[in-house]
Amino acid sequence: MTVDDSWFTEKAKGFGMSLRVKVKIHDEKSPYQHIEVFETESFGRLLTLDGLTMLTSRDNFIYHEMMSHPALFTHSNPRQVVIVGGGDCGTLREVLKHHEVEQVLQVELDERVTRVAEEFFPELCESNGDERASFLFVDAIQWMAEAKADSVDVILLDTTDPVGQAARLFSTEFYSDCLRVLRKGGLLVAQSESPLFDIEILKAIHGAMRKAGADDVMTIHFPQCTYPSGWWSATMARKGQKLKGFRETAARKKTFDTRYYNADIHIACQSLPTFVNEALAQSH
Amino acid sequence: MTVDDSWFTEKAKGFGMSLRVKVKIHDEKSPYQHIEVFETESFGRLLTLDGLTMLTSRDNFIYHEMMSHPALFTHSNPRQVVIVGGGDCGTLREVLKHHEVEQVLQVELDERVTRVAEEFFPELCESNGDERASFLFVDAIQWMAEAKADSVDVILLDTTDPVGQAARLFSTEFYSDCLRVLRKGGLLVAQSESPLFDIEILKAIHGAMRKAGADDVMTIHFPQCTYPSGWWSATMARKGQKLKGFRETAARKKTFDTRYYNADIHIACQSLPTFVNEALAQSH
Repeated sequence: MTVDDSWFTEKAKGFGMSLRVKVKIHDEKSPYQHIEVFETESFGRLLTLDGLTMLTSRDNFIYHEMMSHPALFTHSNPRQVVIVGGGDCGTLREVLKHHEVEQVLQVELDERVTRVAEEFFPELCESNGDERASFLFVDAIQWMAEAKADSVDVILLDTTDPVGQAARLFSTEFYSDCLRVLRKGGLLVAQSESPLFDIEILKAIHGAMRKAGADDVMTIHFPQCTYPSGWWSATMARKGQKLKGFRETAARKKTFDTRYYNADIHIACQSLPTFVNEALAQSH
Repeated sequence: MTVDDSWFTEKAKGFGMSLRVKVKIHDEKSPYQHIEVFETESFGRLLTLDGLTMLTSRDNFIYHEMMSHPALFTHSNPRQVVIVGGGDCGTLREVLKHHEVEQVLQVELDERVTRVAEEFFPELCESNGDERASFLFVDAIQWMAEAKADSVDVILLDTTDPVGQAARLFSTEFYSDCLRVLRKGGLLVAQSESPLFDIEILKAIHGAMRKAGADDVMTIHFPQCTYPSGWWSATMARKGQKLKGFRETAARKKTFDTRYYNADIHIACQSLPTFVNEALAQSH
């Protein structure tokens, strides 16, 4: 059976994921990458960068909620937050749901991603005008190297895959800078790829975070239909404190809506399959 | 980007999953269905029935472990087990890992599926010779209707999707027969499709199980890369008892290997995302 050009297809490692496309509604080459937006048959809109799926209207809620709420309900009082990448603004929207948060700075290299998201994914950008949010379109490596020490509570690395330019955002050097910028008890969260396809990357992230000086490292996992393997992870590192416990009462009584995240999921997403536990034990 | 005939592709609802194929190693039309086996580039062997993915060597362990161990560690003393479907014998293998189990009867319509599995997936069939295992290649609807009441501890419905012939295996009538055949405290487990794609099916299964007289119904979820959406579920119903708790000490001290399942996963897989909880609340 063939999948023709009426489908968008992403292939990697002998595995392919396809979404049937009604029409391509945007196509541009920014200074950094090829940005496309498709109207799909059953996943709403699809944003791709250099031919790789970034998000769809239908299932992005899982990723964005799981990149933000577990970390924000783990930190005792998250006031200053920095998002690295995250140009589609979906993570930013979730972070701003927390009333404790006083400032969120989003450091994204490519301003065009955010402008395209504002036009084609307005629901993800609905909080961009929040007075607590600010945007810098610069290289995050350099920004983090120059940022003030002990000044941020949570850093979310909402990045593309660790290839090309983005690989530097998964390095011990960059994690060291992030940990320097975090206050004590602060949390660093990296999207950390597929437990099934990318276990070696997960191990490398654990190793690099520990080498960078994190006092504790923990991976959480969740489904993500339109990413390769349909299964994804985020890895949290903490400065000067263990990653045990969270503000469970606050999570149970949260005053904002979520569709995937809840307090039970917060606890559950930390339980890893045996093969993942065994692999990560080797990263110590 | 096109996916040509060097890939196996399964499409449904505007979504496609493809595996790159090295060679097709088996192709037959049994009296019931088209059975094919492919050697894939990165997922080992792939078994399909009527063009739909049944399993791959690489990721079937998740499905088979999650169809069996949560139920078997929930039951206080599972001695008699019936598997409906399950012709590839992967679930059977997991069930037989439990030393408390005295008898497992597998009721599969199509003997050819089991014979093909024995030839091409010998690792799944390694316990088929266990003296506790027996095989009946008959219609499970009729078998269940005639089976002795109060005679089985766990019934596992390891079936294909609820379309065509298999739809009857998701009906209130069939669930009623299963509950009749179960002893008090007995468990019925159905594979229950994708939480993201098939929430209406999940709701229908809950409704039908309750209507059939189950005292409690609970859904668990887990990743399953090569099934549509990459995210799957199983739904448990219990006769004469609630579905609370499990033999946690036994699960923590289990003497057999698993790659996905462990006691923490047992607890975690019961925590459902908010949108699933909301949908299932409507099924009451």
